[in-house]
Amino acid sequence: MKLAIIGATGMAGTALYKESVSRGHDVTVIVRNKDKAVSLLGNDVKVIEEDVFNLTKSDLQDFDVIINAFATTPDKAYLHLDLAAKLISFFRETESPRLFFILGAASLLDQKEELFLDTLKTFPDTESWISIPIEAYKTLNFLRGIENVNWVGVSPSAEFVAGDATVPVIGKDHLLASANGQSLVTSGTMAVAILNEIENPRFIRTRFTVCNQ
Amino acid sequence: MKLAIIGATGMAGTALYKESVSRGHDVTVIVRNKDKAVSLLGNDVKVIEEDVFNLTKSDLQDFDVIINAFATTPDKAYLHLDLAAKLISFFRETESPRLFFILGAASLLDQKEELFLDTLKTFPDTESWISIPIEAYKTLNFLRGIENVNWVGVSPSAEFVAGDATVPVIGKDHLLASANGQSLVTSGTMAVAILNEIENPRFIRTRFTVCNQ
Repeated sequence: MKLAIIGATGMAGTALYKESVSRGHDVTVIVRNKDKAVSLLGNDVKVIEEDVFNLTKSDLQDFDVIINAFATTPDKAYLHLDLAAKLISFFRETESPRLFFILGAASLLDQKEELFLDTLKTFPDTESWISIPIEAYKTLNFLRGIENVNWVGVSPSAEFVAGDATVPVIGKDHLLASANGQSLVTSGTMAVAILNEIENPRFIRTRFTVCNQ
Repeated sequence: MKLAIIGATGMAGTALYKESVSRGHDVTVIVRNKDKAVSLLGNDVKVIEEDVFNLTKSDLQDFDVIINAFATTPDKAYLHLDLAAKLISFFRETESPRLFFILGAASLLDQKEELFLDTLKTFPDTESWISIPIEAYKTLNFLRGIENVNWVGVSPSAEFVAGDATVPVIGKDHLLASANGQSLVTSGTMAVAILNEIENPRFIRTRFTVCNQ
């Protein structure tokens, strides 16, 4: 399939790129800095070098799937929502491309049916980073109202760290944990779960979550 | 003040244009069809002839207030949300221009604290028009999450009809009714309420409602 990855030089994006290429997909990365992409992903990487907010519908419409692994600094966290709204507006009343959004874990519910975001807000020193899960939660709520675009969201587990793939455990709206009680997903496992969902769609206009086994 | 009106050839927009000009403001209308604007609003009208989705930040940034009276057909009601998201993305981290959104009445609460949208959904033959209040409600919920843009929303009463101005009665999140029990606002009264709010801001990053006395 013809895939585009926005934010391909980040932790999630890098793993996604490698998994996509290893499965034989035709992958293009959309990055602000081509040199950085080449140094991270290799000389063969296909690149669109452009600020995502300058992308047009015609830049994107020929992809089968656009994976949005865009990440922001906390002071610009609202860009997460703005980019989602921009991509959605491009592809109203279409089934292709499918838009795949990597969202935070904050929008998941814990075992007491409490929003994980509310738990995060009780942590110390939240001011420096809480805007990121807040805006990712707004993005999911925005997406939940979108009925005429082919979108899907994926939330990591409580911890999302660089690492090789294990077998992904898939859930829906609740935080997952492994048998040892740890709620953790590695970038490799996340990439496997996303590519599985791209190749065999199960979650249409909804969000799922992934945990390491 | 330097005002822009999007959708100035509609019922609300026409009344807004007349009220704005009568108060001495410098008004520009943003319309798809200049001839229609001239025939409705007169030869002196200042026009930007452009599809709103092609507008750029530089087209809009010099206005003090942008009044969004954009209306859609029911099959394109989602454009209401997309336009709001586009305008918000232009003016993140700014106080000017102020963005003034005309929303529907469906997001108001009735005397039983029930959402008026839920009452509307019980009406007969809703399929042909219910998308419009649904999308306007989504737009308000989207706006409620926006903390770094100078926005305000206004909802009409249950009935919103063409007519001259009376003294506006102002409320917050509940459907208003006049002494005779009618929940109605005329386009003239709506225009007076909007211009009053523009000249003396009282509602910042929130929504208010208007009823005829």
